Amino acid sequence: MKPSGSLCVIGLGPGAAALMTGQAQEAVRRADVVIGYEGYLAWIADLVGDKECLALPLTQELTRAQLAVDRALDGQAVCVVSSGDAGIYGMASLVLEVIEQRQAAVLLTDVLVVPGVSAVNACASLLGAPLGHDFAVLSLSDLLTPWAVIEKRLAAAAEADFVMVLVNPKSARRHWQYARAQEIIAACRTPETPVGAVRNAYRPDQSVVITTVAWMGEAPVDMLTTVIVGNSQTRCFESRLITPRGYPMTASNDLA
Amino acid sequence: MKPSGSLCVIGLGPGAAALMTGQAQEAVRRADVVIGYEGYLAWIADLVGDKECLALPLTQELTRAQLAVDRALDGQAVCVVSSGDAGIYGMASLVLEVIEQRQAAVLLTDVLVVPGVSAVNACASLLGAPLGHDFAVLSLSDLLTPWAVIEKRLAAAAEADFVMVLVNPKSARRHWQYARAQEIIAACRTPETPVGAVRNAYRPDQSVVITTVAWMGEAPVDMLTTVIVGNSQTRCFESRLITPRGYPMTASNDLA
Repeated sequence: MKPSGSLCVIGLGPGAAALMTGQAQEAVRRADVVIGYEGYLAWIADLVGDKECLALPLTQELTRAQLAVDRALDGQAVCVVSSGDAGIYGMASLVLEVIEQRQAAVLLTDVLVVPGVSAVNACASLLGAPLGHDFAVLSLSDLLTPWAVIEKRLAAAAEADFVMVLVNPKSARRHWQYARAQEIIAACRTPETPVGAVRNAYRPDQSVVITTVAWMGEAPVDMLTTVIVGNSQTRCFESRLITPRGYPMTASNDLA
Repeated sequence: MKPSGSLCVIGLGPGAAALMTGQAQEAVRRADVVIGYEGYLAWIADLVGDKECLALPLTQELTRAQLAVDRALDGQAVCVVSSGDAGIYGMASLVLEVIEQRQAAVLLTDVLVVPGVSAVNACASLLGAPLGHDFAVLSLSDLLTPWAVIEKRLAAAAEADFVMVLVNPKSARRHWQYARAQEIIAACRTPETPVGAVRNAYRPDQSVVITTVAWMGEAPVDMLTTVIVGNSQTRCFESRLITPRGYPMTASNDLA
């Protein structure tokens, strides 16, 4: 019998090395082979060194997951790389689906999903504290999800006053979905409700825009942007968004 | 004029040092004074060394935020510590609220929120990949939020088929809220829908329980537990939850 391999699915965080966890770094160091989108592997070139590296273009997600499972079944220590958190719209679910499809449950004891700082956490931190209370995370991409499902979720989250995190708001070929999302949100929130749009968080060309529900349609938004829409309690203080948890602010400062 | 201080609000991640980011570690190293809940400061005792440390008990969140702002206004480099991600039900919003209340906007250029691995990311990773698609995060604590608001959000998220992450599901004094949440969810999901309950993720007494909507009421659940309820697509494969992103699984493995 072949020696059993292992399979780590890691998230690199938003891109800055200082926001990668130690556990994710360790998983790369221990790997025989590192598999990921070529753009993300470039972020960790130093860490990868001269290890074998399978750098595939975008859209080849299934192929990456299949290669990872094949290599692990061959006895190698495999590390699959996502940006952000591998579990949040990342490679973790696809890798597990391939293991299921291959009936390779024997691998599972050696499969590790290493959590990371997702785009949700990263973009929120640059805006201040918009996620201080309940929030919903939605992708506006209708490539893999029917638009009717997305629209239903948009309306439900808007009506129930969740802070809303919109990922994949637009792409080169998808435009109207973001405008439609704005319409749905505007039916439930005041025009002044704060909105933040963060592009390329913690990367060299980072941009942070603070706007409102009324004007969010004018913000520069693309596949690399995450948009956070405040709830009815969110306010903008100078350049930061605050969604209060609800603590009474009147208590005395008893230790000061 | 006094020299300007600085204020970092960091998240430690779930507890294991290997899941803290380098940027959060650096913020502790640079601080003159570290402020936080005494339980969390114990996790980073080595990193804190002999720095001044203001370790306060739970429930003194406002006092911690006030002390932090006072010290920063006094010219110190202050580090405020949350568990998980400081922006997600953490100290970041409260610190910004105190800065606003003190009309201390001058501090803002020196305020940094450092993102971390939240309980959401951590618990999901231990369950496999339950957050592969849209999800909603809700606290079941009605200490600071009216129950009517929480119930409305529960119903909206359940009806719109979001994966649901329930934080603070129960405490020593709050019992019925979790049972009521189960009722609301059961009205919209099949009894077999997978549910995961993770307690003390990545800490010495970690427990991971996989159950279903029908049986989630029997799972051991408290303030240290995060409960993740699958959507209509989530399935349980051996000991892992998978919420598929929706990739077609039939494409050929063209590079294998």
